[in-house]
Amino acid sequence: MDPAKIRDLLERVRSGDASIDEAQDALKHLPFADLGYAMVDHHRALRQGVPEVILGEGKTSEQIAGIAQELARTGQNVLVTRLDEAKAKDVLPQIRGMRYAALARTATLEQAPIPPLGSAPVALVSAGTSDLPVAEECAETMRMLGVAAERVYDVGVAGIHRLLAHTETLVAADAVVVVAGMEGALASVVGGLTAAPVVAVPTSAGYGAAFGGVTALLAMLSSCAQGVAVVGIDNGFGAACAVTRVCNQRAGRA
Amino acid sequence: MDPAKIRDLLERVRSGDASIDEAQDALKHLPFADLGYAMVDHHRALRQGVPEVILGEGKTSEQIAGIAQELARTGQNVLVTRLDEAKAKDVLPQIRGMRYAALARTATLEQAPIPPLGSAPVALVSAGTSDLPVAEECAETMRMLGVAAERVYDVGVAGIHRLLAHTETLVAADAVVVVAGMEGALASVVGGLTAAPVVAVPTSAGYGAAFGGVTALLAMLSSCAQGVAVVGIDNGFGAACAVTRVCNQRAGRA
Amino acid sequence: MDPAKIRDLLERVRSGDASIDEAQDALKHLPFADLGYAMVDHHRALRQGVPEVILGEGKTSEQIAGIAQELARTGQNVLVTRLDEAKAKDVLPQIRGMRYAALARTATLEQAPIPPLGSAPVALVSAGTSDLPVAEECAETMRMLGVAAERVYDVGVAGIHRLLAHTETLVAADAVVVVAGMEGALASVVGGLTAAPVVAVPTSAGYGAAFGGVTALLAMLSSCAQGVAVVGIDNGFGAACAVTRVCNQRAGRA
Amino acid sequence: MDPAKIRDLLERVRSGDASIDEAQDALKHLPFADLGYAMVDHHRALRQGVPEVILGEGKTSEQIAGIAQELARTGQNVLVTRLDEAKAKDVLPQIRGMRYAALARTATLEQAPIPPLGSAPVALVSAGTSDLPVAEECAETMRMLGVAAERVYDVGVAGIHRLLAHTETLVAADAVVVVAGMEGALASVVGGLTAAPVVAVPTSAGYGAAFGGVTALLAMLSSCAQGVAVVGIDNGFGAACAVTRVCNQRAGRA
Amino acid sequence: MDPAKIRDLLERVRSGDASIDEAQDALKHLPFADLGYAMVDHHRALRQGVPEVILGEGKTSEQIAGIAQELARTGQNVLVTRLDEAKAKDVLPQIRGMRYAALARTATLEQAPIPPLGSAPVALVSAGTSDLPVAEECAETMRMLGVAAERVYDVGVAGIHRLLAHTETLVAADAVVVVAGMEGALASVVGGLTAAPVVAVPTSAGYGAAFGGVTALLAMLSSCAQGVAVVGIDNGFGAACAVTRVCNQRAGRA
Amino acid sequence: MDPAKIRDLLERVRSGDASIDEAQDALKHLPFADLGYAMVDHHRALRQGVPEVILGEGKTSEQIAGIAQELARTGQNVLVTRLDEAKAKDVLPQIRGMRYAALARTATLEQAPIPPLGSAPVALVSAGTSDLPVAEECAETMRMLGVAAERVYDVGVAGIHRLLAHTETLVAADAVVVVAGMEGALASVVGGLTAAPVVAVPTSAGYGAAFGGVTALLAMLSSCAQGVAVVGIDNGFGAACAVTRVCNQRAGRA
Amino acid sequence: MDPAKIRDLLERVRSGDASIDEAQDALKHLPFADLGYAMVDHHRALRQGVPEVILGEGKTSEQIAGIAQELARTGQNVLVTRLDEAKAKDVLPQIRGMRYAALARTATLEQAPIPPLGSAPVALVSAGTSDLPVAEECAETMRMLGVAAERVYDVGVAGIHRLLAHTETLVAADAVVVVAGMEGALASVVGGLTAAPVVAVPTSAGYGAAFGGVTALLAMLSSCAQGVAVVGIDNGFGAACAVTRVCNQRAGRA
Amino acid sequence: MDPAKIRDLLERVRSGDASIDEAQDALKHLPFADLGYAMVDHHRALRQGVPEVILGEGKTSEQIAGIAQELARTGQNVLVTRLDEAKAKDVLPQIRGMRYAALARTATLEQAPIPPLGSAPVALVSAGTSDLPVAEECAETMRMLGVAAERVYDVGVAGIHRLLAHTETLVAADAVVVVAGMEGALASVVGGLTAAPVVAVPTSAGYGAAFGGVTALLAMLSSCAQGVAVVGIDNGFGAACAVTRVCNQRAGRA
Repeated sequence: MDPAKIRDLLERVRSGDASIDEAQDALKHLPFADLGYAMVDHHRALRQGVPEVILGEGKTSEQIAGIAQELARTGQNVLVTRLDEAKAKDVLPQIRGMRYAALARTATLEQAPIPPLGSAPVALVSAGTSDLPVAEECAETMRMLGVAAERVYDVGVAGIHRLLAHTETLVAADAVVVVAGMEGALASVVGGLTAAPVVAVPTSAGYGAAFGGVTALLAMLSSCAQGVAVVGIDNGFGAACAVTRVCNQRAGRA
Repeated sequence: MDPAKIRDLLERVRSGDASIDEAQDALKHLPFADLGYAMVDHHRALRQGVPEVILGEGKTSEQIAGIAQELARTGQNVLVTRLDEAKAKDVLPQIRGMRYAALARTATLEQAPIPPLGSAPVALVSAGTSDLPVAEECAETMRMLGVAAERVYDVGVAGIHRLLAHTETLVAADAVVVVAGMEGALASVVGGLTAAPVVAVPTSAGYGAAFGGVTALLAMLSSCAQGVAVVGIDNGFGAACAVTRVCNQRAGRA
Repeated sequence: MDPAKIRDLLERVRSGDASIDEAQDALKHLPFADLGYAMVDHHRALRQGVPEVILGEGKTSEQIAGIAQELARTGQNVLVTRLDEAKAKDVLPQIRGMRYAALARTATLEQAPIPPLGSAPVALVSAGTSDLPVAEECAETMRMLGVAAERVYDVGVAGIHRLLAHTETLVAADAVVVVAGMEGALASVVGGLTAAPVVAVPTSAGYGAAFGGVTALLAMLSSCAQGVAVVGIDNGFGAACAVTRVCNQRAGRA
Repeated sequence: MDPAKIRDLLERVRSGDASIDEAQDALKHLPFADLGYAMVDHHRALRQGVPEVILGEGKTSEQIAGIAQELARTGQNVLVTRLDEAKAKDVLPQIRGMRYAALARTATLEQAPIPPLGSAPVALVSAGTSDLPVAEECAETMRMLGVAAERVYDVGVAGIHRLLAHTETLVAADAVVVVAGMEGALASVVGGLTAAPVVAVPTSAGYGAAFGGVTALLAMLSSCAQGVAVVGIDNGFGAACAVTRVCNQRAGRA
Repeated sequence: MDPAKIRDLLERVRSGDASIDEAQDALKHLPFADLGYAMVDHHRALRQGVPEVILGEGKTSEQIAGIAQELARTGQNVLVTRLDEAKAKDVLPQIRGMRYAALARTATLEQAPIPPLGSAPVALVSAGTSDLPVAEECAETMRMLGVAAERVYDVGVAGIHRLLAHTETLVAADAVVVVAGMEGALASVVGGLTAAPVVAVPTSAGYGAAFGGVTALLAMLSSCAQGVAVVGIDNGFGAACAVTRVCNQRAGRA
Repeated sequence: MDPAKIRDLLERVRSGDASIDEAQDALKHLPFADLGYAMVDHHRALRQGVPEVILGEGKTSEQIAGIAQELARTGQNVLVTRLDEAKAKDVLPQIRGMRYAALARTATLEQAPIPPLGSAPVALVSAGTSDLPVAEECAETMRMLGVAAERVYDVGVAGIHRLLAHTETLVAADAVVVVAGMEGALASVVGGLTAAPVVAVPTSAGYGAAFGGVTALLAMLSSCAQGVAVVGIDNGFGAACAVTRVCNQRAGRA
Repeated sequence: MDPAKIRDLLERVRSGDASIDEAQDALKHLPFADLGYAMVDHHRALRQGVPEVILGEGKTSEQIAGIAQELARTGQNVLVTRLDEAKAKDVLPQIRGMRYAALARTATLEQAPIPPLGSAPVALVSAGTSDLPVAEECAETMRMLGVAAERVYDVGVAGIHRLLAHTETLVAADAVVVVAGMEGALASVVGGLTAAPVVAVPTSAGYGAAFGGVTALLAMLSSCAQGVAVVGIDNGFGAACAVTRVCNQRAGRA
Repeated sequence: MDPAKIRDLLERVRSGDASIDEAQDALKHLPFADLGYAMVDHHRALRQGVPEVILGEGKTSEQIAGIAQELARTGQNVLVTRLDEAKAKDVLPQIRGMRYAALARTATLEQAPIPPLGSAPVALVSAGTSDLPVAEECAETMRMLGVAAERVYDVGVAGIHRLLAHTETLVAADAVVVVAGMEGALASVVGGLTAAPVVAVPTSAGYGAAFGGVTALLAMLSSCAQGVAVVGIDNGFGAACAVTRVCNQRAGRA
């Protein structure tokens, strides 16, 4: 909005030529004025019990501990992801109450209550044991965001009956996260078994022609099951955020 | 099938309360009977007003018309995707009531009512005019699935204020579909503006180093906004299915 | 071996300075002398009823007809692969008895009896309708090589029960060919259901992130089912040759 | 499960010839009962002397030893693959009778007899010394699966006469495994010398433009010799499984 | 800014508790209020004589003519890029005064004066004749933006003396655009000859291993000459915009 | 030029048959004679206060210290890039006055005055904390080249308002450097906010599908904002050189 | 060299202060003065009977005919490469004496004698019939450059004995050109059979995983035969130039 | 050839039923009989003074020392390539007379005289200091093969005059090896300056978008200078072998 027009508007307010309501209305349509409102609202929604997240990868133990201590002081919950065991040994003694999940490579500090999200657990499906670290990163993130997980692990498609035995869980879930490496076929089979939202996470597990997760990534994006959506390789954290968006939206309207 | 139910059935066979034929019938739907339950349920949910889908690409006009006529006879709704204009001219005269959406390259036959899904429209956001065919394929698919769309078109990030003016729509939506080619940056900005589920569709639009959508695909998968999920290149149909899973799940629990 | 040395050896044979056994021994170690034997034998095995193959792609109708006529004159069977419909219309009238399989894009001339190979049909499994041309190229090639095929079509993994209904066929087969595009997950599921040799053929069918068959190719190479072997994209002919090697070897020893 | 068998079972329930418990037990193995039949059969075939396999890569020495001990207790044979020398030193003292093959990077425990498979040895052909670890992983796996190997090592195509001297072995083999890195040309030459099934294993050996085995992989998939089938890079284990499928199938029918 | 705070501010204006200046100051720091100012200014600068640009690729002749006519009516200059000859024949008769540059594949309508930018011509250097369409697209765009070009064509590095003869031009230029396909080496040599800003445009010209411009793109990004900046493949338009930013900035401060 | 012709020319000069002017003219067209002039000039411009640069990567501490000492003796300024902390500890005690910037991984020796370049600071914009090392390498290089930087850090597009608050800085800058990893969207948004020259630096920061900076690189090259130019991955040094060319050119004409 | 210094030197020559020898010495060290000599010499060598080359691809019939006519007038030989049949029909009637080689897609005008190069023919080896166009482009180029070719065609490695029968030719040749698509294995086998220089040309022939020649290109670059050098995909022309450099160098010294 | 037939032939020789000439004729057509002659000859040529080569990469110090000792005992020369400094320290004390070239990462044992090859030195051109290890590997290999090298180092194209000063060397050389990383432009410029055979070696040196040598590799293959041939990344050894083939061939005919 042109400064001159704002000045003019203000002068008309002062002179009484424009009512406060009119002026506020006019200002509301200032570019992004309503944005501000929306975002605050959105931020408020997100801030309730939502942990601050620290990406441990590429930070030193000192940096991680420093940020975590600062956050801890404010009473917030804290989630550290991609924290290897060596750093965890350095960091944890410095943050009272923080716990480390070795498989998930996450550390969490839970000092504020976490309001639960969603009406049914999110099914967390994984193919093989090498996919577990990513699945557990997803699980820990969901836990800190208030989303319940029902683990359906070790159900790779080469032994299809193991998966089929869990069909009811897949159908009933608020959403399904599928974690698989190698050829990532699990996402397609799961997508055909349930009408729930499916978020697929390719993992870097595998060899031969798995190419660090690229094969699973492409396979999941090309799934013959309709409506499967995909996040980046090994991004269990991202999948948790995606299903949280789903649960959050449901919660926000109930 | 619940073991208790099987036991009950067997007891009714022994007692003569159930004939062998009845029991066999009940069991006939095994081996996928409990699976079947879930799936039938799931199928039932999906079958209400859900169109049968014909992928027009790679089929001749005759094949498309043949399949469509057969489906039309059953009273179902029909959706043909990726149908170019030349084929559409051949096919439409043969299917009474079928309409062609040239931009979306879809043909639809709507003879059964489509029950609406979702509590707020899905925001359908696209970057440039070259992305419109994909966005409209998504829109037409959503329409046939009962999902309302609110179009927010031509809001590429190089003119960021155009997008920001629609923030409230993005925040209020049941879900957001972001359709963008070139560098696909729109998905990241949108993901930061709303807490709703975001499904990103990379398009093949662009030149220079767009590589037929690969750049947008990778960029969307690497989005700095958390929880953005992605479908394949130009897959407007897949994005519609993904948000339908979200709306469907909400509907199923309400 | 030096011609002079051979001459010398022969002269010593004639003069009696070298015994026949000594000479034969010396010659046996000529490079590849035994190779000659092996290869002739091997060629003889291959020549029985085996068609000559003409790759139609990249040849003109005239060239194809010319080669086919020449082969036809010798009484051999002929197989033309990757022959599109336009060329087929030109070629067929020139070769009496040649038949065209439009879906497989093959033309065949069968004038010599084809000895059957194998003890049970090869299961020919395909995922979707777009994969049929490749599957049928495989089927026609197998037919010309004497290998019986049992078609198990349209059993994509998004509707897993359709595939499971054919498990017995997969288990009983001499070998299984799996033809699938998109994410190629079918190979992994099939590989888990049978202990028979599995040859997977990725197809170029698909969109989104299928990349002309590369995704299916990589996925099949990364299959979580052990011992799945793979041929090139859309190479139905190659898969038929691979399973023929299997059946041939069995036949050769019975 | 055969409908006739189900009917018979139900009639025996009605007549009292079968107790409810017995019938439920029989049915308990549904939903995969007919599937189950096939699979059990298949599993039985596979279970005879077949080792349990532990992928050593990505597991700690403790995890490997733990799993191996548990398996050892059941009397089964055990195969650990991709076990580096450091871990082997930790693991072996804990499993009585386990042996380590340093070149193959495998550890094996052989406590049950291994029934031999196949009528002639599988020819195991490799190009250079850098390919030996992959070839030996294949050999050790074959040994544990009962498949005899005839090693034809160091026969790279740059000295073609070395390979040709072994032609008879290639022709006579039940199957041929070709292990080669760099440009992987060996698979094409071998495929032209024998009509036996050929499984090609690209290795990551090489430099210049070998790209960690991708070049050999693509070259083998593009082989001008018909019917060569390929497994993933460095996947000696997978090749052994593939030829075992071939030998197994032959054995199953004899 | 919180609506409540805005209301409060307005009330204080009305009551005289806040002066107009104070209020305007406060509002100026509304998010994006100054942005608005900046952007208007920026837009004004850009709007002076700057043509509207229509990307001809992917639009029909009707669409292009329609948009061009609408723009023409407003008195603005118009630039159509990537307009092939067939479409140009359709479009030009409909827009009085529009001219077509066949090599550049651009059409231009020049009805407003174009203020010149820059103190010395931009050197426009290209390697071979196949690069000329891209170079000319750049030249035409620069012309419409007021930037003078000095063409230095056909100076590929395989005949290095041809390039060296133009060193003075390269040194004196406001900026240098280097247009080259194949191996793109020209950018490195030019970058070493001048201290002026260098914008490199890889073209899709070439064969062998040029891969549609990817090789030139990567080579230019890896240039051993420091400070060479790169735009996308065949993006002559983008390079013109990049050097216009340079000239524009100079002009804006003079 | 042929030595004989030069001799002949010189003899004609001596004898008076050719005037000095004629001779000079003839020699002027010797290939590259004027080049020599241009280049000296160009070199002189570059040499004023410009540091010698040592790429620390791939050199030992001894090598780096050796080169730096030699340069230091001449009184020049020295810039060492990509110098990790371990090497820095070795090198710094050997060069009096050298300082290490740990985040930038640069060491600098400033003993000659650095003439300032440019009329307004270059805006140095970065997305996330992982991008800081690259941004700081750019900042240190600019400092040594006389270019002032205004840091605008941590303004990733997922929180778009943080960036927008700095719009005025972007508009006023002599040039803008954008440093971003992951999906690199920041370059597009910045390019839309300012008409200044924009040089984008993709970084290797990111995971999921960031592929070591390739995704950001491609995205920046495909930017929907016109005229964004790009340098190689993590090449903060190159970006500094590119903007120095811009500032240098401005300075050279003022 | 500074013009002033040149002037000064000339004046000292005129005045006798500098001898002709001194002056010539000084000038000899002008940058590139000796270069000029070398290049002229080099050009002279190249100009004897060497045809001018016109790349037909990407030029219209008119352009090709125009350039060819101009060259024809000067009495030079002319070689047009990558000239498809349609264009050839247009061009040939306009150039008296020009002949078209359809398979090679080259047109040649031979009006000056071509001095022969080399002491033995270059062996031109190709794998399959699809490789012939590239091989013939090489042959025609060699013919126009004076290099004799001995064709060894259709010797793919799947029938290794066909190649081995030509070993003597490979050993005796001045150089060997190997033209092969698919997996390109021929280059490795040939490289092992001869000590002559080997230039390998990958072709785009093939399917499955040939990827338009990329597989053959990588395979040839990774050849296990030492000292095989490679040119770009389908670059028969380039291979001819490479072996001409070899023959030329030999000739130049004899 | 069938052993029985050979026996029969020999018996007919002995009995006089076949003349020696007839028998020799028959045997001459044994596959590869003449090959044997050719190859022996070829091998003899290669064996004169040629070192045995050990690839140090991927071998332990013990293995390298073992092989080297065995070779040393036979009086041959030995070349070990890709031998890092740590291993060299282990190996050298065990082989009397072996010398280590640290930059080249080669160890050589020279106990037999090396006959010189070629009439003029091979020009060994490299771009930057990071390319030196590859250049030196090439130099050491050439030395052991009898090929003289003239080093032209540090002549990257960003300072083109440094290269031009060496034009005469490039023109006079028997062959030129160009070693360059980053964008590999040096090969194109050199190829334009000389008519000698040019072998280009891309190196993995570089950053930004050098991708471990892939960029240089592709650029060299796409060189606008005709007839440049390329070997794999960092393959200095291969380049030495390629130029040795050139020199060898010349020598063989003189």
